[in-house]
Amino acid sequence: MTKKRIFSGMQPSGKFHMGNFQVLNNWVKLQHEYDCIYSIVDWHALTSSYEDTRLLPERIECMALDWLSAGLDPEKNIIFVQSHVKEHAELHLLLSMMTPLSWLERVPTYKDKLQQLGDMGKEINTYGFLGYPELQTADIILYKANAVPVAEDQLPHLELAREIVRRFANLYKPVFPEPQPILSPLLPGIDGRKMSKSYGNEIPYAAEPDELQAKVRQMLTDPQRVKKTDPGNPEICTVYTFHKIFSPDYEEIAGQCRNAGIGCVECKKRLAAKMTTTLADVHGRRKELAGNPAKIKEILVYGAERARKLAAATMAEVRAVMNLD
Amino acid sequence: MTKKRIFSGMQPSGKFHMGNFQVLNNWVKLQHEYDCIYSIVDWHALTSSYEDTRLLPERIECMALDWLSAGLDPEKNIIFVQSHVKEHAELHLLLSMMTPLSWLERVPTYKDKLQQLGDMGKEINTYGFLGYPELQTADIILYKANAVPVAEDQLPHLELAREIVRRFANLYKPVFPEPQPILSPLLPGIDGRKMSKSYGNEIPYAAEPDELQAKVRQMLTDPQRVKKTDPGNPEICTVYTFHKIFSPDYEEIAGQCRNAGIGCVECKKRLAAKMTTTLADVHGRRKELAGNPAKIKEILVYGAERARKLAAATMAEVRAVMNLD
Ligand code: SF4
Ligand code: SF4
Repeated sequence: MTKKRIFSGMQPSGKFHMGNFQVLNNWVKLQHEYDCIYSIVDWHALTSSYEDTRLLPERIECMALDWLSAGLDPEKNIIFVQSHVKEHAELHLLLSMMTPLSWLERVPTYKDKLQQLGDMGKEINTYGFLGYPELQTADIILYKANAVPVAEDQLPHLELAREIVRRFANLYKPVFPEPQPILSPLLPGIDGRKMSKSYGNEIPYAAEPDELQAKVRQMLTDPQRVKKTDPGNPEICTVYTFHKIFSPDYEEIAGQCRNAGIGCVECKKRLAAKMTTTLADVHGRRKELAGNPAKIKEILVYGAERARKLAAATMAEVRAVMNLD
Repeated sequence: MTKKRIFSGMQPSGKFHMGNFQVLNNWVKLQHEYDCIYSIVDWHALTSSYEDTRLLPERIECMALDWLSAGLDPEKNIIFVQSHVKEHAELHLLLSMMTPLSWLERVPTYKDKLQQLGDMGKEINTYGFLGYPELQTADIILYKANAVPVAEDQLPHLELAREIVRRFANLYKPVFPEPQPILSPLLPGIDGRKMSKSYGNEIPYAAEPDELQAKVRQMLTDPQRVKKTDPGNPEICTVYTFHKIFSPDYEEIAGQCRNAGIGCVECKKRLAAKMTTTLADVHGRRKELAGNPAKIKEILVYGAERARKLAAATMAEVRAVMNLD
């Protein structure tokens, strides 16, 4: 049986934090179960940064560096820059012809983000900004992706993609599978709330071992577990949430917690050690690759070539069913 | 000095009439003064016919046939099908990112056409339909066209194109010239009013000589000119409007009319003869080419290759100034 295919993209915004790392970490896991296509979506970045694009090349390179350092394998996965594969623009245009304006206007994130960026003084009420989820749909279905790892707030976009897929099938022929969401849990802050600078509960991505240990020590545990001999409930413990991401043996840890086989101090030490090693590996790879921009370029060129092959095959089918060939 | 460049396009709607022929006749004249790029804009046709595209290939071939029969030289001009040059879609996408939604919403033809086609039961309130003038802008400026032969009702679209060109220059660098209109007069009906089926004043494009003569005989002349010895005013005469299009010696005819050197009967005979010969030539070429669809295909492939070269050069510049290369 062939593996199911995943598509996901990230805007090269230039900001990298533990939250992104968690998403990447998830991608790294998915690369074993799925055929994965990961795109640095620079055209999407234009929706909010068309007024100044000078930093874009640097941000793209930086994002590729982050991805590769996190452990995304450029052979196993297709890693590429969206604007290198023109078929995204062609499919976007074709889909635009059959997508009711109202479908885009009612996407819940549309008005919210318009407001939010407008408040920041950005003039983003453009035609392209309205078409953002249309381009996202094109990105996904161009590769006939079966699934998309998304955060909860992206679900309406994926629902729109499925609607467009169904409309296309009704008008012409079914060419695309309906992409299903793979919900990625978000990494919380050390206090269990949403990780956010304004809460001061972040763990810096570039944290040194000392800082990391201090942060882990501050993490909220099961508040009912007072003594080491009390059995704990890992499901309500922030430390355990992090273990699930960083420790392959997290199930064992859960068992030890439940039967009081491990104390919270020891449990935190283990987590800090795991995070230190994982991040040290990541930072090590990052350092090595950062000195070799030619290698990064080469990887992106190779990824674009592979993406283009898949995209070209899909577009040939699309043109055929639309009588455009 | 290099010639100025013209771009123009026509939707393969499948309907051909004397009005189109007049536009083509104008293009045939322009081919001597300008570098001309003429495109069969099939992607545009999707805005109103995405629901059924089965006739599209036939209509494209038919349009190419009309163009070539009318005397457009495929060596002198670049003649191609829009969807064969993907750069139109890429530039359209990039422009969409910087075009305020309100600019598109306020284009006067937008609401009108929405209404008109809605009344015909077509569901065309799509994202792509709103973006129609955006795609038109991309079509024109992709070739750095200096001018566009347009009918009066297309002027707002061209004004929008110029606005987008200025915005692009302000945001990045001036890459595109501001395209200027070349107003093409519309061929009137035989009663001097707008040619329209509902007025019954049309001249069928495929008219036989007899029918043509009858139509010309019915044409309105200068109503003040009662006797042959009265001097006439060609400027208010429908016959003369047609002479301007069909008779290279139309200025001479105007002179003879003004000094009563020619009678209206004779003047009409001359016009009918000219139209007969011109249309006979056109129909002759049409017959010859219609038997050779491979030749038409070859011409369109050749045109697309030449268009692509120009388009690729422009896009390289666009990507460079937008930091997308
Ligand atoms: S042992 Fe670990 S998982 Fe259990 S409550 Fe303590 S820190 Fe949390
Ligand atoms: S002579 Fe010719 S141009 Fe003059 S009024 Fe008669 S028909 Fe018209």
